[in-house]
Formats: sequence, C-alpha cells, structure tokens
Amino acid sequence: MANLNDIATALGVSKSTVSKALSGAADVSTQMRQAVLEKAVELGYTRRFRGDAPPQIAVFVINMDYRKPEDFGYDIIAGFRKFAEPAGYRVDIIPLDRQLQESMPYDQYMISHHYCGGLFLGLSLMDPWLKDFRDCRTPTVLYDNHVSGNPHVTQVGTDSMEAMQQVVAYLKSLGHERIGYLSSALQAYVYQQRYHAFFRAMDESGLSASQSLAGSAYHISDCLTQHLPRLLEGGCTAIVCSHDNLAHSVVVHCTELGLRVPEDISILGFDDIPLCRFTTPPLTTIRQNRTDLGKSAFSALSSQLNHVPLSTLLLHGELIRRDSCADAPKKQ
Amino acid sequence: MANLNDIATALGVSKSTVSKALSGAADVSTQMRQAVLEKAVELGYTRRFRGDAPPQIAVFVINMDYRKPEDFGYDIIAGFRKFAEPAGYRVDIIPLDRQLQESMPYDQYMISHHYCGGLFLGLSLMDPWLKDFRDCRTPTVLYDNHVSGNPHVTQVGTDSMEAMQQVVAYLKSLGHERIGYLSSALQAYVYQQRYHAFFRAMDESGLSASQSLAGSAYHISDCLTQHLPRLLEGGCTAIVCSHDNLAHSVVVHCTELGLRVPEDISILGFDDIPLCRFTTPPLTTIRQNRTDLGKSAFSALSSQLNHVPLSTLLLHGELIRRDSCADAPKKQ
Repeated sequence: MANLNDIATALGVSKSTVSKALSGAADVSTQMRQAVLEKAVELGYTRRFRGDAPPQIAVFVINMDYRKPEDFGYDIIAGFRKFAEPAGYRVDIIPLDRQLQESMPYDQYMISHHYCGGLFLGLSLMDPWLKDFRDCRTPTVLYDNHVSGNPHVTQVGTDSMEAMQQVVAYLKSLGHERIGYLSSALQAYVYQQRYHAFFRAMDESGLSASQSLAGSAYHISDCLTQHLPRLLEGGCTAIVCSHDNLAHSVVVHCTELGLRVPEDISILGFDDIPLCRFTTPPLTTIRQNRTDLGKSAFSALSSQLNHVPLSTLLLHGELIRRDSCADAPKKQ
Repeated sequence: MANLNDIATALGVSKSTVSKALSGAADVSTQMRQAVLEKAVELGYTRRFRGDAPPQIAVFVINMDYRKPEDFGYDIIAGFRKFAEPAGYRVDIIPLDRQLQESMPYDQYMISHHYCGGLFLGLSLMDPWLKDFRDCRTPTVLYDNHVSGNPHVTQVGTDSMEAMQQVVAYLKSLGHERIGYLSSALQAYVYQQRYHAFFRAMDESGLSASQSLAGSAYHISDCLTQHLPRLLEGGCTAIVCSHDNLAHSVVVHCTELGLRVPEDISILGFDDIPLCRFTTPPLTTIRQNRTDLGKSAFSALSSQLNHVPLSTLLLHGELIRRDSCADAPKKQ
C-alpha cells in the first residue's frame, strides 16, 4: 500500500505538494494534480482517512429508483447507512451516469473525491467503470454483480441457489412436474446465476428440466412473444420468472390468453418488489431482504477496510407464498 | 424469540424454576431440567447472555487437525479468536465425536451448555447433527458445508467458482486444452461445488470439458486406479484435483508411470495445505486464506447474533504458482 511519501519520491516532488494535490488545493497546477493522481493510482494508493474528517463512502446508484420508500434501492441505502453512520463513516449517495464514468477512471475518481470505499447499486454490463473493477484498488462492493479475481471487489446479493431450491421444492409439493423458466437477458450476472440455479435445483429434485422449456430476452415483450407460447404448448403447469416485473407480465399475458392463474398455470417471480402484493392475483415470489442487503453491503466493505477481503456475501431469500401458485391441474 | 417467561408459562412452572433448570442448579430434578430444555428448544429459545459472564461460542472440530501451527484448522481457529475475543466472547474448542452428537439434539446441547453460537470445522455427511441444522435456532456457521433454507445457519468458505476460473484461465494460458478433473466423493458439499465450478469455468472459457475426463471416488487409491488411467488415455495434458492430498498422489502415481510432472502433464491441487511447498515438484494450487476464514466465520456469526442472517460468505482463493504446471506438451 503506497503512502504520500512513495508518490512524492516517484514523482520527484515534495510530500506537501502531493498532499496539496490530493486535497485539491488551489496552489497546485492542474497538470501536477493530474500527475499526482495518476501516480497514486499506479502505486495502489487508496484513501483511508483525511485528517480529522470522517472517512467517506460513496454509494453509486445506476438504473435503480431509491428516493421513495417504495423504491427498491431505498431500504438498501437505509440499511447501509444504519450500519455505516454509527461506525463513523459519512455516506454520499451519487447518481451515476455514463458521463461521470467517462470523465476519469474509477480509482482516480475515488482518490480525488476522498472516498475510501464504494458501493454500486444497479450496475449494468454497459457501464464504462465495469472494466475498471478488474484491477481497481479501492475497496468496492457490487450489489448483484461479480468481478472475478480482484481482492478489492466483493459481491453482495441473495443466494440464488437456495432460493431456487425453495421454489422448486414448493412447486414439486404442489404436484408440478413440467416447470418452465423465463428470464431477462442472460448477459447480466444475476440472471445467469438464477438461470443456472434453477436448472441445478430441478436436477437435484429429480424433475427433468428442459432447455426447450426456458427462454430469455432483454425486453419483456420479446419474452412473451418469442418464448411464452412454446412453454405453454410444451405443457408447462408452472413458470418461474427471473424477476417480478417479468412474472407480472406473464400473469397478465396468460390471463389475456384465457388461462386462469393459478388454477391453470402457476407463476412465480423473484425479488418481492412492493408491486407484488397488489397484482391480480398477488404474486408468489422470493423476497430479497433489502434492509439486510444494505447492512451486509456495509459489513462487506468494512471487512475489506479491515483487510479481510471477501469474494461473496449472500443473504437468505425467503419464499413468499401469495396467490399466483396452486396445485398442478389434474392431467387429462 | 422465546424468553424464560414463555417457557415457564408453557410448562406451568415458575420462571425461577426455568432459570435454575437452564443454569444446571442442583435443586432441580433431572426430569424437570429435561422438560425445560425440550420446551426451550421447541419454543425457539436461544442463549444470548448469561448474567455478567461473557457470551460463549463453541468451535466444534471434527475430522480436522488443529493443535499444531501446521495443521489446517490451527489458523482458522486463531483467526476466529482474533476477532471473537476482543469483541467480548469466550471461545471453547470442542473436539466433536459421534457419541457427543448422539447424546442430545444440537439446540439442546447449545442451550444446556450456555453457548450463544457455534462454528463447525470438518463436518461430514455422516455426522448425526447434520440433520439438526435443517431447523436449528442456534446461530451456527459451517465451514465448507451448506444447509439450505435455515436462516440460522451460514456457510463460510472459499469461492469455488472464482478459483476454478483462475485455474482454467491459467492452464489455458499455458496452452492446455484437454483438462481432466479428479475429485473426492461428490457427496460432500464442497466437492460438489468445486466439480460444478470446474465444468462451468471450462464452459465459459470456451474449452470443451468432458465428463469422460472426470472421475470421483471416496478413497484416493480408487481415484488413481479407476479414473486416472482413463484421463491419461484420453489425452489429458493437465489434471485439476479437488484437494491437495489427491493432487499429490496423482503426481506420485504419474511419476511412477514414467510421466514427467510438469513436462508431460500438469497437476493442480486445491487448499494449499502446508505440504504443497515440500512435494516434488512443489504443488501449484489454490490457497484458502485460513486466518481470514476464521475471521470471516466470526463476522458471519456476529452478523447472525445482530439479526442479519447470512446464507453464504465466501473468500477469494489465490492461485499459487509453484512447479507442477508448465506449458502443454507439443502435439505430436
């Protein structure tokens, strides 16, 4: 771990110049400031403390609503703060767009903005900083994303395997044997995990899962038109969906096709977004405990800051039984 | 969460009788003590604190050496204590045999011995308490074992998927294409994980993995006689093994067969047991950071005691390159 002296020596300048450059003092030139930043990143310097000010953590939010209590990100951030602030950290919430990511590399941003660690909510595969996570030095936690092989990055999420074991066991107990799976695009890490977990859980439970009864697409409408008809013709009596919005759309579409949910077909979602209680019928799903996700995200970051780097931290998902699943219809 | 009053009410006895029964006072009959214990378990009572005494945690050790610094369990326990004791917990190390497990159910044991939580090292599928973990209420952490669906049980281990991605990427960079896999019996949770992870990593890397180039057996000698010849005849230039002892035996056996390791065949292990540095040639393997495993096991238990139940907590494994791997031999 490099310190201010190492950076000063490498650049042949004084320690106070480095210190002033990193703190953004006005009497250091833009060029010097940039040179110091780049050398700091190169040498693996990371922020820990900044004089007497509390250490700062950035929570970056992309593609996720978080401002209102019913938003998915709200409780995650509240849970994070509930652990981080009593531990003495200042937490900044930063909506992250492409432009900000393209303005400078991730580590440089974190050093120049005095952050000792970052949490990312809603990162997508299109985000420019994703490639930076392969070798960043800033302690970083990704919700529902995984970067392999960098000890400075930890994934936090809900255990997909355990969740799918619960889902499959539940459907099996209701007499379902032909169970289909619909998913958002499998490029996203979390949807890959859920997809693999579904097939492994089916395997383990002795039900034969078939790739011909599964489908994925980026747009929900494509899932409905390109895959759902095949699943229905294939005799599925239950369909597991990769997330609640998709499940809700499948319920609506099945109803339009004249099928009764759950009498003719059972539908399950994943996440337990607030909407699930208010759909017709209310949606059976796997609950992600959002407050605990936030608390765990802080625990994971804190573990890194204390030099115990974690790869993955997963919470238990909970099967929430509402009314979109029922006994499999009798075979004719 | 039940308290002493709930137990007293359910049994129609006084709170002080319950308290005395649970603390093992001499003036409570054996029958009453047993009745109180059983009711306590039934109602989901768990120990938290016991008057002014520090809360106590039990570390159960089965099938794992831990007394000497070179033993696998030694650093795990040291890491656990390093976090637990400054946090105010007393840690008891308990060698666990079948007889103790059969003497009473797990939750009863924990309550009657005043433990607020337990860590298990080296649990096997034959252990009688394993079934108790499905619905125990005592906060419990299992190293390298997973029990699905119980919020009171957390798995701690090393990320198999990330490790196998590192292994496969490394072998691919050395020009290996036909890579075999040998494993201990796949009934054990951790060996299942590593096995699936190996095949997924091969898949992701674009190498075609074949079940015909894989094999598993409980006894190492069976792996060598029943599977290794098939892998060698199948043209494997590298063999990944589920654990170091197996890898070391494969090295010895290949050498006896006249093959040079690593010139003719590359061999990899998993765990980085202390032996790996001293084999001929020294063994390339995935290191599990045992001290961090112990620290993380405490973090996981502490998270449960603070009502944030985790399902899984995984550390980064580290590829340790020694001399048992080299460039794939040129094709003839």
